[in-house]
Amino acid sequence: MEDALSGLEGSRPGRGFEPLSPVSFLLRSARVWEDRLATGGDAQASTYGDLLLHVERAAGALRAAGVGPGDRVAVLLPNVAAMLELHFAIAGIGAILVSLNTRLSARECRIVLQRAQVQLLVAFGDYQDRVEEAVDGWDDAPELWLVASPPGTRSYEERKACADPVEIKAPDERSPLSINYTSGTTGVPKGAVYTHRGAFLHSLGVIAEARMDARSRYLWTLPMFHCNGWAYPWAVTAVGARHVLMESFDPEHAWELIAEYGVTHFCGAPTVMSMLVDAAGASKVDHGVRAFVGGAPPSPSLLRQAEELGISVTHLYGLTESYGPIIVCAWNPDWDALPAADRARLRARQGVETVVSAPFRIVDDGFEDTPADGETVGEVLLRGNNVTLGYFDDPEATDRAFSGDWFHTGDLAVRHPDGYLEIRDRAKDIVISGGENISANEVEQALAEHPGIRESAVVGVPDEKWGEALVAHVLIRDGVDRPDRAELVRFLRGRLAGYKIPRRYVFPDDLPRTATGKIQKFRLRETAKGEEQTVNS
Amino acid sequence: MEDALSGLEGSRPGRGFEPLSPVSFLLRSARVWEDRLATGGDAQASTYGDLLLHVERAAGALRAAGVGPGDRVAVLLPNVAAMLELHFAIAGIGAILVSLNTRLSARECRIVLQRAQVQLLVAFGDYQDRVEEAVDGWDDAPELWLVASPPGTRSYEERKACADPVEIKAPDERSPLSINYTSGTTGVPKGAVYTHRGAFLHSLGVIAEARMDARSRYLWTLPMFHCNGWAYPWAVTAVGARHVLMESFDPEHAWELIAEYGVTHFCGAPTVMSMLVDAAGASKVDHGVRAFVGGAPPSPSLLRQAEELGISVTHLYGLTESYGPIIVCAWNPDWDALPAADRARLRARQGVETVVSAPFRIVDDGFEDTPADGETVGEVLLRGNNVTLGYFDDPEATDRAFSGDWFHTGDLAVRHPDGYLEIRDRAKDIVISGGENISANEVEQALAEHPGIRESAVVGVPDEKWGEALVAHVLIRDGVDRPDRAELVRFLRGRLAGYKIPRRYVFPDDLPRTATGKIQKFRLRETAKGEEQTVNS
Repeated sequence: MEDALSGLEGSRPGRGFEPLSPVSFLLRSARVWEDRLATGGDAQASTYGDLLLHVERAAGALRAAGVGPGDRVAVLLPNVAAMLELHFAIAGIGAILVSLNTRLSARECRIVLQRAQVQLLVAFGDYQDRVEEAVDGWDDAPELWLVASPPGTRSYEERKACADPVEIKAPDERSPLSINYTSGTTGVPKGAVYTHRGAFLHSLGVIAEARMDARSRYLWTLPMFHCNGWAYPWAVTAVGARHVLMESFDPEHAWELIAEYGVTHFCGAPTVMSMLVDAAGASKVDHGVRAFVGGAPPSPSLLRQAEELGISVTHLYGLTESYGPIIVCAWNPDWDALPAADRARLRARQGVETVVSAPFRIVDDGFEDTPADGETVGEVLLRGNNVTLGYFDDPEATDRAFSGDWFHTGDLAVRHPDGYLEIRDRAKDIVISGGENISANEVEQALAEHPGIRESAVVGVPDEKWGEALVAHVLIRDGVDRPDRAELVRFLRGRLAGYKIPRRYVFPDDLPRTATGKIQKFRLRETAKGEEQTVNS
Repeated sequence: MEDALSGLEGSRPGRGFEPLSPVSFLLRSARVWEDRLATGGDAQASTYGDLLLHVERAAGALRAAGVGPGDRVAVLLPNVAAMLELHFAIAGIGAILVSLNTRLSARECRIVLQRAQVQLLVAFGDYQDRVEEAVDGWDDAPELWLVASPPGTRSYEERKACADPVEIKAPDERSPLSINYTSGTTGVPKGAVYTHRGAFLHSLGVIAEARMDARSRYLWTLPMFHCNGWAYPWAVTAVGARHVLMESFDPEHAWELIAEYGVTHFCGAPTVMSMLVDAAGASKVDHGVRAFVGGAPPSPSLLRQAEELGISVTHLYGLTESYGPIIVCAWNPDWDALPAADRARLRARQGVETVVSAPFRIVDDGFEDTPADGETVGEVLLRGNNVTLGYFDDPEATDRAFSGDWFHTGDLAVRHPDGYLEIRDRAKDIVISGGENISANEVEQALAEHPGIRESAVVGVPDEKWGEALVAHVLIRDGVDRPDRAELVRFLRGRLAGYKIPRRYVFPDDLPRTATGKIQKFRLRETAKGEEQTVNS
């Protein structure tokens, strides 16, 4: 057998082997769909041929600025064309893309830029003050380019215009493509490393699930900085569909774009979905729209409203570390005939691994798989090609996050008798509000800087609009006047991104604790639901 | 950078890495779609859960028979459930699947069995005489199991029933999954080796192109022994769609199954397509059927007929060495509005590489890329994950077939200005009739064994029903009586599979030759089209 296969081992990369990379998707679409429109919406209409040219010029500009393989380039951009271009330009020269959440404060931006050891930052012109504040007094600060800013030396567009195009190509498939920072439970951002191989496969999983083709129109309701836009920058490009760019999410504008472009697909948190269905401009679409919703289960009423508008909803689950959604509530056609309430209950489950993903596990404290009884809660573990290699420059955090090859999500779930996973609770102290992950610990640390606050405990409570809303339980130091809500909000601004600032504050005499003194947050969540001592925004 | 990524190189298989294999597709579908029907049609209805059980039992039987990783197991089966099972069972224990064309003669079977050094042959009961003849007097003959045969020691089903199930799993992704034999131009069968990685990726390409999901019903018009059924055994399983098995193709029966099962997808040569549209039972389908046609361009009238029946046709191109179709005439929505004649002309082009495939080349004799002018003819070269590693136990043939990493298809084509490929001629002496590749050389060698024949030249000519039909030009030895058609057909039977036997014979005085004496087959093809001296079947 060994002899018979001699020369066939495929050890030579090339024969029977081509590295997997989403960079190939753009190269192919620029050939196959050269004259088809790649972009639209708030961005200029541009063909796939033009998109590649823009990307090659951006790659040329990066190269001219000294960016090489393995270097980190950060972007702080809304869903503009430059954001899409840079997904391919940075990857296509073997550099690593670090997308920053556009809602981060200057201080938070600086922490990520430092941790990722970023060489260059491309930011939206509107954010100029913030990024200048972020790099203020930093000797070794990254170079700064601005998108859509007045003409000047820092202009991204001018850099591009002057650059010689550079050919983009797929590097080694196991090399890092991007680093996506998660605030994590400790409040210290951790950078989940994605590979070219993982992103290529994850994209094919998206295509299989979303069933997109060259006729599809994808509306960019989801920020592209979230887990690289759940792989849609690559997947939409791969099939030659059209990116309908929306600079920032606005439900009324979204409906205009849905009508104008005949949008077929979009993604988002349930918050986005509920803002859409409640919008004044909402009107039934006849051609069928598929929405992919993650971050929290869509409620039965949301599902009903969406259905009435001609939008079919697929529920997803994932984390930054799993390239975004890796679990999908795959719809069993046998369920079609069930009553609406049953269907809503089934659709609220997170589901099963996608077709390109390795099976998940749900384990108890002894690392044993829990029974598929729909009752026994265990921790969700993930592994496979579309799970992060680990955290950038943080071997300790990487070690803590993995048991062998298994990544600990920190999320607690049950496995139903049919194998579908349903999340019950998050073991990690994370609140998801409006689709954003918020570390309760990070908010508590910021509150601790206030001279009048002795201790605090921040929890999320169910919220119709945001999925979860933050409630801060604050213990005041003896002999100090109780600060009011407005003062605390003012205090936190500048320290935290706006979406991390609690709108509700409770001032109890003490916090419920375990025998060992650990705060019992589940009790706080229960009482906070019906709490009277709150100040609502 | 190296330090920052320490421990993240993914050198440990497992963290951020999972081997790619179609075996994973069945494992996932048996979890996700456990109670959904996997099979139907001529086969017993069986769920995905049951299919996995059958596969595990088949794997157990193979293991018990001493089959291990790297061993070759041949199958000589029509589209029965066992054929589908064995695609997963053999791969799932790391052994290698060798599918034989069910129309091969005993002699031809033996040659492939010997060349592949097969340890076990699983054959359809109806073929018992033929396979016994194939192994007759062969000391080291492979063990023989029979499917759907009367009870006895050789029964595949009995072996399975007695076996302990064995867990199937994905082996190393670069390891061989199957060997598919092509008769090639020399008449000596060459075994193209497919890998698990290649098959996994090729399947995802099929899913993206065919846009199948759990509601799809795939009709098995294409024999599964053709390039592993163009990856549909894996792709249909991956999405949890239903395999509507048809033991052997019959157009009237196909229409019954289309109606009964609500078939959504099928594949085949244009011959299959034209038999279908011409069938008495043909009737318009309302739910939309997608047909994938390869082997020859579908004619404008065929396309029109299909369209009228509610079948949309996609034209494909590929070879055994490229896992079946690797080039697809990707339909540009901008073409929808063109007149029917223009659309037919565009659809007759073979197209572009699929989304998982590397770009092809078309080169001249100096290995330079030809211009995209729609006129300059060059040879088509392929490479990438879904191109064979090479030929099993035949390093010389492998070396001849490759220039570096590029596989020489032997097919001549032009590249149109929009990048689409169109085949102009086959440089290799292959005739494609009824979707089967036939080596003209092999037929000529068989004719040469006839005592009255001095020399022959076999060509293919366009044929309404079969795509191409074989015409043999035969030179008779001096002083010998000219054999008639019936005698030659009788003579070739037993030497060749029926589909390789020419139905038309021409007896010229000499053959057109080049200055160096090489037969000018293109002239024979031209004259044969209007030939009068033929005997039609």
